[in-house]
This record gives sequence, C-alpha cells and structure tokens, in this order.
Amino acid sequence: MTDAPSPGFQPRDPHFDSRVRASFARQNAMAELGVRITALAPGALTFEMPFDARFTQHHGFMHAGAITTALDSACGYAAFTLMDANAEVLTVEFKANFLAPAKAELFRIRAEVLKPGRSITVCEAKAYGVTAGAEKLIASMTGTLMALTA
Amino acid sequence: MTDAPSPGFQPRDPHFDSRVRASFARQNAMAELGVRITALAPGALTFEMPFDARFTQHHGFMHAGAITTALDSACGYAAFTLMDANAEVLTVEFKANFLAPAKAELFRIRAEVLKPGRSITVCEAKAYGVTAGAEKLIASMTGTLMALTA
Amino acid sequence: MTDAPSPGFQPRDPHFDSRVRASFARQNAMAELGVRITALAPGALTFEMPFDARFTQHHGFMHAGAITTALDSACGYAAFTLMDANAEVLTVEFKANFLAPAKAELFRIRAEVLKPGRSITVCEAKAYGVTAGAEKLIASMTGTLMALTA
Amino acid sequence: MTDAPSPGFQPRDPHFDSRVRASFARQNAMAELGVRITALAPGALTFEMPFDARFTQHHGFMHAGAITTALDSACGYAAFTLMDANAEVLTVEFKANFLAPAKAELFRIRAEVLKPGRSITVCEAKAYGVTAGAEKLIASMTGTLMALTA
Repeated sequence: MTDAPSPGFQPRDPHFDSRVRASFARQNAMAELGVRITALAPGALTFEMPFDARFTQHHGFMHAGAITTALDSACGYAAFTLMDANAEVLTVEFKANFLAPAKAELFRIRAEVLKPGRSITVCEAKAYGVTAGAEKLIASMTGTLMALTA
Repeated sequence: MTDAPSPGFQPRDPHFDSRVRASFARQNAMAELGVRITALAPGALTFEMPFDARFTQHHGFMHAGAITTALDSACGYAAFTLMDANAEVLTVEFKANFLAPAKAELFRIRAEVLKPGRSITVCEAKAYGVTAGAEKLIASMTGTLMALTA
Repeated sequence: MTDAPSPGFQPRDPHFDSRVRASFARQNAMAELGVRITALAPGALTFEMPFDARFTQHHGFMHAGAITTALDSACGYAAFTLMDANAEVLTVEFKANFLAPAKAELFRIRAEVLKPGRSITVCEAKAYGVTAGAEKLIASMTGTLMALTA
Repeated sequence: MTDAPSPGFQPRDPHFDSRVRASFARQNAMAELGVRITALAPGALTFEMPFDARFTQHHGFMHAGAITTALDSACGYAAFTLMDANAEVLTVEFKANFLAPAKAELFRIRAEVLKPGRSITVCEAKAYGVTAGAEKLIASMTGTLMALTA
C-alpha cells in the first residue's frame, strides 16, 4: 500500500481504516462497478476499477458517469478518513473535467483532501486509464463533502 | 410527449430525433441503468430512470454517480439535438449539486440547452425523485458539451 | 421592484430586506464596481452594474472576474434573504460559464435560491448584458453558500 | 523567477513570454487590482496581488470575486503560454472553492496547465494568502479555456 500519498493530515479517528472499508463495503454501486480500494491513508486513497462494457457510452468508452461514480466515492472516502468516528459523509457538489477518452484496461483513481474541515471538506481526485501498465490522465474532479454528526 | 419544454431553438438537422435515439440506443450504460427517453424536442429532453438497488450508496439511496450518469447523458443529448447531422458530441466538463437524498420510486431528469454554439454548447439539467407521482428536486447539473465534426 | 421573481420561499427573518441591504452596503467591492440592488424578494434579487473600463480584459470587454464578483454577491444575498437574523453567509464554492462577450452598456444579474437549507443553500444566477434596453445572456453561475451562526 | 513550476510542456510559440506579457498589459482589470506576473514558464505562472480595501466584502476580507479575477487570468495566461502565436484565449468556464478567509498582506496565485489541447485547455490554480512571508491556501480553481484562431 505504498501507492497512497499521505498529505500529512492527522485522523481524528484512529480506526479510520476499518470505518472507511466497512462503509465502502455497503456501497452496492462500488461492487457493481468492480471498484477496489488499493491504498488508503489519512486524507488520501487509491481505487482501481476494471473496464466494463456494460457501462460504456456510444463510442464504446466507459461512460463519463461511471468514471464520475468512482471519482465521487474516492473524494467521499478520502474526506471520510479525517472525520469523527460518528460522522456521516455527504456529497454537497462536485465538478469534473474530462480530458481524454475513457479507453483502457482498467482505471486508477487517486483522491486527496485539499482542505479538511469540521463541517466542509474539499477534495481533489484524478482518474487515469491504465493500459499495459502505463497511466494516462483522463479526468479530474474537485468535490465538496459535508460531515453530518448525529 | 408533451413533457419536453421547447426552448425555441431551431435544429440544424431535421432528423435530430432519430439521430439522438440511435446514438442513445448505443449507450450500454443507459440500458444498464434502465434510462428511457420520455420526451424529446429541439434543445430539450426528459429521461426516466428506475430506482435500482444495484447502484446504491452506503445508505441505500441511489449513488450520486448514477444520478450524474443520467444527468450527463441528458445534457449531452439535449445539446446533440441542435448539432449538425455529422457531428459527434463530447462532454468537456460538468458540475452537479446534490440537494436531497436520491430516494424515490423513479427519477425524472429534464435537460435544456442554455446556449447552443457551433463548437461549445452549455446545458442545464435537473433530477427529480418521483414517489407516488409527486416530484422532488434532488440534483442539478450544468454541463459544457463540444461538437466534433469529422 | 416588480423585477425580482419570487420563488415562493418564506423568510425566517421578517426584516430580511434591511438586513441584506445593510450587509450589501458594507461590501466595498460592490461600491467600487457600482453594483446596485434593483429588486429584492425572499430567495431572489436583481442587481445592475455599469460597464466600467477600469475592469476590462485584453479585448476591452468586462473581465469575467468582474461579472463573477457581481454573480457571487447576488447568489450570496439571495441565500442571505432566507437565513436566520443572526446568521453570516459564506461562499463555499461556485461555478460559472461564460456564454457571450461581456460587452454592453450595463449588466443585469438575477439570482434565485434553488434549494434553501439550515446550513447549505444552493443558488443559481444569470448575467445579462443590456444595450439599448435589450438583454442578452452572457454568463451563468451555480453557487453553494453556507450559513454560519455565532 | 525560480518560482514557476515547469510542468514540462513544449510551447508552440517560442515567443510565448512576450506574447503573454503584452496581452496581460492590456487587461485593465489586472492593473486596477495591482496584479503582477512574478514567474512565467511554459504551462505555468505565478501572480502576486496586494490586499486592497476597495475590493473587500462585508467582513473586510478581499471579495471572493477579486480572488477569482486573479485566478481566472492566471488560468487563462497559463493556457495562453502553450497556444499558437496567432490564437486568442477565452474562458469557457471555471469553478472555484473558497477554503479560508482572504485576509492577508498579499495574495500569491499559482496556475498550471493540467491538459493542453489545440482547442480546449484545462488549468488548475491555487490562491494563497501571504502574511509575514508565510503562505496559507485560501482558494482553488479549475478552469476550461478555449483557443480561438482567426
């Protein structure tokens, strides 16, 4: 798990790792898209998602929405690593730019917290197409997440 | 098909309706999500998408990414209605706000062209949760689309 | 003041009008840009801003940033009309699309609350260039505002 | 001028530096805000902008719109460094997040091209408040720029 950059944030919950993985395991959409967590650190994580012909657009590339689904969960869980143990995380909004066609064997998504906050956390994520081991940047996201505490 | 508002734009391609439907039919992701076109007009369209437990997040609501996938295609095809017969449409970027949990029997998505252009078209779309016939606004998108002509 | 659309929201503070105008009067940037409130209602407002050659870009049009400054304050104060009497309003983020050159005698900005909330409010705003009385859409914004209560 | 990171892009116009500076000098808004170019490289640049009480919001901080004006020009000129000698640059859209109050002696803005393109270029920029030499991140932007060739 050397892949996740550590932006140097201190988690408030020492058990952030198991808390994130338990919530991730309850997201049916992640299972359906075949997304796996391949690295996890305070304020950062990496996902991998296979190419899947069921989720393509009209040219046979992965639909921007499928890439966005992974980017959004990546931002959400990167933010979630730094939240209190009893907090819920909610996507307020995101913005994504699509930089190259989503045509690759698999997709790697890296998310990082830009600014954590008690209520609002801002994250950045990038999606890369990976073919024969080589990465190519295909999309970027900035997302605003909110912590809800019961 | 009285549901699609007509923003009053003139299509350059008189056969825009069949061109849009043929492209839509090639988007596997739309079939997988069960999205249907329920109204189509120059510069505007309406989609419906059922609730599907395969695409939920950790609270059992539809994942923001699933809603976004429908919003993105809605913006893309609303833009596509006004493009030349030989153009391809590409998502440059979008931004979405999530306003209420995506918990409903089905989702209705309405997209409309805000500003058409030979190269760049800007669209707005809203997603509504529909339960027992009543609509509730759950998300909004602004998208920038590009026409590519071979 | 028939110009401000009323989206039908109920203000929590009956004195929202004077509260908004007092805060607006403390924004030096609004005075410097010559922005005036020309209509104000619960959840909606209209601004006017003159063309000013001091704030142009390299083609002599108003800088996108000047238009954005007015759009941002318009979203902020539209949200502020619906907030508690003791709340402060803060811009979390915004996204703006630029649809036509900002070349006009004056600019009219209309903002409206899309979704009010105790903590987060989402607004939409449009900027129009006005020349010889005719309006032309030049920019749109979606903004996320936050209420801070001491 | 060691401050501008070089993302390693090759400029198509060897005279990009003087072309950028000449266009920048024609932006009245930059002069009015006191913005200076402090570093310039292919695909990257740094601006500095003083605190100016004329452009404050209601708490006496710099207005988000003033920070945005500098961020937008930074993205535009970072993109412009990589464009053809006869191209014009246009802001299609941008999205900005505000991370901390714009309260500082001066503001430093760093912009970098994320993905250059013949038609569309995507840039990222960050704004920092600088007080007693220490930087604090206050805002981030992702911008989509377009090259127009006569």
